[in-house]
Amino acid sequence: MHGIDPLPSWHEGANKQAILDFIHRTTDHKSPYFVQHAARIAVFDNDGTLWLEKPKVTEIVFITDLLKHNPQQAVTDGNSFFGGLFGAALGGVLSKARHFLAVKIKEMLSDGRWLVREFIDGISTDEYKLWAQSWLAQAQHPRFQRPYTELVYQPMLEVLKLFAEHGFKNYIVSGGSNYFVRAMCEPCYHIPPEQAIGSQLLTRLTDHGGQLQVELRPIPWFFDNGAGKVLAIESRIDRHPIAAFGNSSGDIKMLRWASSTPGALCMMVHHTDAEREYQYSPGSKVLDAATEYGWPLIDMKNDWRLVFPEPLPPCTEIAE
Amino acid sequence: MHGIDPLPSWHEGANKQAILDFIHRTTDHKSPYFVQHAARIAVFDNDGTLWLEKPKVTEIVFITDLLKHNPQQAVTDGNSFFGGLFGAALGGVLSKARHFLAVKIKEMLSDGRWLVREFIDGISTDEYKLWAQSWLAQAQHPRFQRPYTELVYQPMLEVLKLFAEHGFKNYIVSGGSNYFVRAMCEPCYHIPPEQAIGSQLLTRLTDHGGQLQVELRPIPWFFDNGAGKVLAIESRIDRHPIAAFGNSSGDIKMLRWASSTPGALCMMVHHTDAEREYQYSPGSKVLDAATEYGWPLIDMKNDWRLVFPEPLPPCTEIAE
Repeated sequence: MHGIDPLPSWHEGANKQAILDFIHRTTDHKSPYFVQHAARIAVFDNDGTLWLEKPKVTEIVFITDLLKHNPQQAVTDGNSFFGGLFGAALGGVLSKARHFLAVKIKEMLSDGRWLVREFIDGISTDEYKLWAQSWLAQAQHPRFQRPYTELVYQPMLEVLKLFAEHGFKNYIVSGGSNYFVRAMCEPCYHIPPEQAIGSQLLTRLTDHGGQLQVELRPIPWFFDNGAGKVLAIESRIDRHPIAAFGNSSGDIKMLRWASSTPGALCMMVHHTDAEREYQYSPGSKVLDAATEYGWPLIDMKNDWRLVFPEPLPPCTEIAE
Repeated sequence: MHGIDPLPSWHEGANKQAILDFIHRTTDHKSPYFVQHAARIAVFDNDGTLWLEKPKVTEIVFITDLLKHNPQQAVTDGNSFFGGLFGAALGGVLSKARHFLAVKIKEMLSDGRWLVREFIDGISTDEYKLWAQSWLAQAQHPRFQRPYTELVYQPMLEVLKLFAEHGFKNYIVSGGSNYFVRAMCEPCYHIPPEQAIGSQLLTRLTDHGGQLQVELRPIPWFFDNGAGKVLAIESRIDRHPIAAFGNSSGDIKMLRWASSTPGALCMMVHHTDAEREYQYSPGSKVLDAATEYGWPLIDMKNDWRLVFPEPLPPCTEIAE
């Protein structure tokens, strides 16, 4: 851990040191907490832990935008947002799209937990992913006027990178849908889709003239939150993670699951920075759990030099 | 592909060549079918494709053995099989084990497909895995008098190794339970548990004096067979596999899913060797699908020099 600072966006302090100490004790052969490569599993909540979740969770914004416009109309109406967006990106796919028969959304917004229970019946998971990718490539956050994909936390990107460079397999474990998190985890975090775990709807396999297709059904199948996060990790990864990062009450059980391994690292992101991001309490459950189990709270305002990545400087032509 | 033969247990012929050609066309930068590392996903059925499944599917033998003996008694009765097996291996774990209240098994043995629907209520997934590991370390196949872990197909081990060496991520996609396949995939195939996908029961998270535990519930949640295999692959991996191996009708849809990518490799293992393994038909559905989609049948008798790995030679002391 000499030479280049692997966490340059973190102020020196106990939290930065806790992360560096963890990497040292789990990857140094002489450490009593040394962990074999295969067991280096780290889990990260997504919304509010790796990227911003205010004023609304990003997938909710996406779905709200999606439902505002009937894409069947949009394709023929070039002036609408979806016409431009989908017309260019999806063309042929949408021309085949079934009517939105069961377009309905239930946002379960209570106590920071949510699940989109019912939305698009018969839409293929590939279509949903394409829409999410297209939307992510264009949509701007209302306050910061930047793409959502740039509103990831730079200090957490450095943690993901540091972990990966030390043989850790990083998993996203999100209450958001499996289909959305898979669309954003590669461009945002360089994490492949098989390392993204989200809430799921039931799916069905259909045969369109010999072409198999996986379609969404408006029936909730698995809610990846609270105890669900532990059950998902157990089901998908088997091994206990030895590092876990979260920010809300839905992450407490996941952190407890990780903290059963001696030497584990569990931290909660605390949104304390009204100026550079948002200021809000994670709720008493999180604060109590952090105290009870000794999980450090990452103080966004005081721990982070930088919240979001620096925008790329404007590209200017070099005069001859 | 010069020098050492990567598939020494395969006779020269069209099927061996098909595998070598596939590796060449997907990993040679100059090939029109070249595939980036991240998309090199291969899926393998387990029972009858990577290891033997006769006279009974191995997990069925395991569960039958498990249910023959009440482990609560067994711990106090050193003479019983389970007394010896569990007494040594599990000791403390079992002393805490809850009574088998809902011990019941439904073997759905019809047309080669099966699912253990109900078995042990409240047993933790960790316990089940430990039992499976202990059983696998001791149990012998009635005909071959060898541990089941040695009754994997040597030619398929070579395929797994060849694929892995060329950047492929190999997944087991089994109708067997997630919990059993994870116990055997690492010792048998060097495949980590997060690359094993199986049928699942519902689980619940329980708190035992501060210790969280994931327990099995006797409620089927997901049957990883037929269309289920495609839905599981879609849910877990996202990307389409570009190679798929199976042996029964429950694998047809998985092979069709993989074969939607140009240049994909799909093969069915055909059990034609009564002498060295077993001889049985995969059924007309498989034979018809193989003809319709052009999937080669691996003829165990004529394609494979060796079926199972050579037993290790006996260890003899070297005289001074």
